[in-house]
Amino acid sequence: MRKVYVIGSGLTNIGTLWNYGLRDLIAEAGLAALDEAGVDRVDAIFVGNMMSGILNAQENLGAYAADYLGLSGVPAFKVEAACGSGGAAVLNAALAIKSGLFDRVLVIGVEKMSDMTAIEDVTSALATASEAEYELFWGASFVSLNALIMRAYAMQYNLSEEDFGWLPILMHKNATDVPYAQLRFPIDMKAYLNSPMIAEPIRLLDSAPTGDGAAALVLSASESRDGEGVSVELSGFWSSTDTVALYTREDLLELKAAKIAAKKAFEMAGIPSSDLDVVEVHDAFSIMGYLNLEALGIVEPGKAHEFIKSGDAERSGPLPVNPEGGLKARGHPVGATGVYQIVEIYRQLAGRAGSAQVPDPKVGAAMNVGGTGANVVVTVLRRVS
Amino acid sequence: MRKVYVIGSGLTNIGTLWNYGLRDLIAEAGLAALDEAGVDRVDAIFVGNMMSGILNAQENLGAYAADYLGLSGVPAFKVEAACGSGGAAVLNAALAIKSGLFDRVLVIGVEKMSDMTAIEDVTSALATASEAEYELFWGASFVSLNALIMRAYAMQYNLSEEDFGWLPILMHKNATDVPYAQLRFPIDMKAYLNSPMIAEPIRLLDSAPTGDGAAALVLSASESRDGEGVSVELSGFWSSTDTVALYTREDLLELKAAKIAAKKAFEMAGIPSSDLDVVEVHDAFSIMGYLNLEALGIVEPGKAHEFIKSGDAERSGPLPVNPEGGLKARGHPVGATGVYQIVEIYRQLAGRAGSAQVPDPKVGAAMNVGGTGANVVVTVLRRVS
Repeated sequence: MRKVYVIGSGLTNIGTLWNYGLRDLIAEAGLAALDEAGVDRVDAIFVGNMMSGILNAQENLGAYAADYLGLSGVPAFKVEAACGSGGAAVLNAALAIKSGLFDRVLVIGVEKMSDMTAIEDVTSALATASEAEYELFWGASFVSLNALIMRAYAMQYNLSEEDFGWLPILMHKNATDVPYAQLRFPIDMKAYLNSPMIAEPIRLLDSAPTGDGAAALVLSASESRDGEGVSVELSGFWSSTDTVALYTREDLLELKAAKIAAKKAFEMAGIPSSDLDVVEVHDAFSIMGYLNLEALGIVEPGKAHEFIKSGDAERSGPLPVNPEGGLKARGHPVGATGVYQIVEIYRQLAGRAGSAQVPDPKVGAAMNVGGTGANVVVTVLRRVS
Repeated sequence: MRKVYVIGSGLTNIGTLWNYGLRDLIAEAGLAALDEAGVDRVDAIFVGNMMSGILNAQENLGAYAADYLGLSGVPAFKVEAACGSGGAAVLNAALAIKSGLFDRVLVIGVEKMSDMTAIEDVTSALATASEAEYELFWGASFVSLNALIMRAYAMQYNLSEEDFGWLPILMHKNATDVPYAQLRFPIDMKAYLNSPMIAEPIRLLDSAPTGDGAAALVLSASESRDGEGVSVELSGFWSSTDTVALYTREDLLELKAAKIAAKKAFEMAGIPSSDLDVVEVHDAFSIMGYLNLEALGIVEPGKAHEFIKSGDAERSGPLPVNPEGGLKARGHPVGATGVYQIVEIYRQLAGRAGSAQVPDPKVGAAMNVGGTGANVVVTVLRRVS
């Protein structure tokens, strides 16, 4: 079976970008990735995006991306899996290369959430990741569904309010020197505990911000070694699904799809998950970050807060988590997030993560979650040298 | 390279289905396809859909489909390419099989357009297939963009109003005995010419109706021969893109993406397009049907109306076009349409098209168009016996 290599990456700053529309985000990230890969043509384009129809009155996003990149003519599609859309687009691009029909594919994750031209507000748009008739219709927002999980988790493991603060504190610390991150300021426990409740027990500082952004990758069937003879292989990837609505889950606290996706992705890569040197988890809310760490087998259930508090997840620790600040502080432009995660792992493995660089990582993984765990993509990357 | 076979199909009636929500459409078509294939598990699900976020407040549609089919756990994604979403989902499912990672994949195309729970009206939702900032913002509806093309075409080839009536007349004739078709009544030229203008020169009877519907296919790497030793191979498929906005096209009357997609799909199948025995074209409007026939090389530019008028496109003619009534009369549940087309070609080749059966077809193709030609998928199927 063909291998898949990452040969280029690009991204935009994340934030409320008044001077960027959907097309500008796509063009900046996409062209940067093509430039880094040193190519000007690709065989296909996959766009990861969740809400462009609702927020920007724009679908047909594959053709739209091809158009504004000057690449009209190539096959181009939008892939949607709620907040997991970015990872899903990378997965489908990797399948396209494995198929043997395409040698070089551009993936772009994009979301334009501020200053939207159309149709609805962001909270309503995000709620389309949950179940329209059994959750949204009854007034549950996406935050409130995560709040249910967090409350159950805190009760199950007898956790204090403080215990959830360690993750956002680390994320803000990591983002301070990341030039494209949205929230580049540190917070402390006092700030965390003083931040307002959004949907009890979820606080403002448990929550990823909304922002505009795009990230892009060029995937290739051919290896492209850098000056030091290093290349990065996208060696394992898998996706799994769970029920959309929370009420049908057997266990609110188990991300079943995340566990399956992780297990299969590491199997495909032929790498034990214990070999991980750096990991990206989907901390849209602190609770989701903790459940991701459990699903990856990095911590025992109920112990994620101790792991983060111990310092082991710091950039200099034995297993750095979200060294660029994660969804919480790097930012969470929803359909772009999964691609940001993989760009960051790629740059870490290639030794090009700048001030966020962790020491000499050889294996990295990203977990990208759609909905409250209904659709999860895990991607494993490996440095080849 | 692995081959891809169609081993099962399913579909719902098309219409204003008051007693069907999104989940019911998905379940009915998906379970029918699994049943026809004689399988109860698949390795992945691809959902073709354009507007569920806007019309049904529901995204995360891959997980949603897996959930309501009792298949949670499998990788599942939504693929969007505007009105070409169905064909795009089939294409990506076929790539998944070619990749070697999946042996059996379910594809579901679905759109729930009536009785919508959410956010916007159908005309605004359809307009997201065009360019939000350079077309929609200035008041162009999707119909009016097609009307521009139709007017240019009529002027270029000096066509009368009648010349556009032949296609809808044939489509309505074909649909009369198709049990799942939306408009099962014949029309004549008088009715056509008396039908009101929607966006001049497009009349009501040039336009596909809006409707709810879902269609599904099971694709497999393994052949499944029927009692007569017949199987159907999905032997060629390709997609191509063009600019989203009409004003940037060099020639309003050339569906460039359709030509590229057709050429490459027939090349991949190793079959000359002259071998076609039956074809599905994307007649969302009469003009689009005519341009599809040109792009497939079936007629010379400006001659589609003569071809249809001659009777050669009838079920009993040398090249039957849309024997189930096409988008115009079978119906056009947008994101499902591309899958309906391929289900119909599959059933024709398998000799199971009922009263719509054309005589002994061996090769068929479907052209599925997103936007005003911005994203086109062509799929070529072949009977193996």
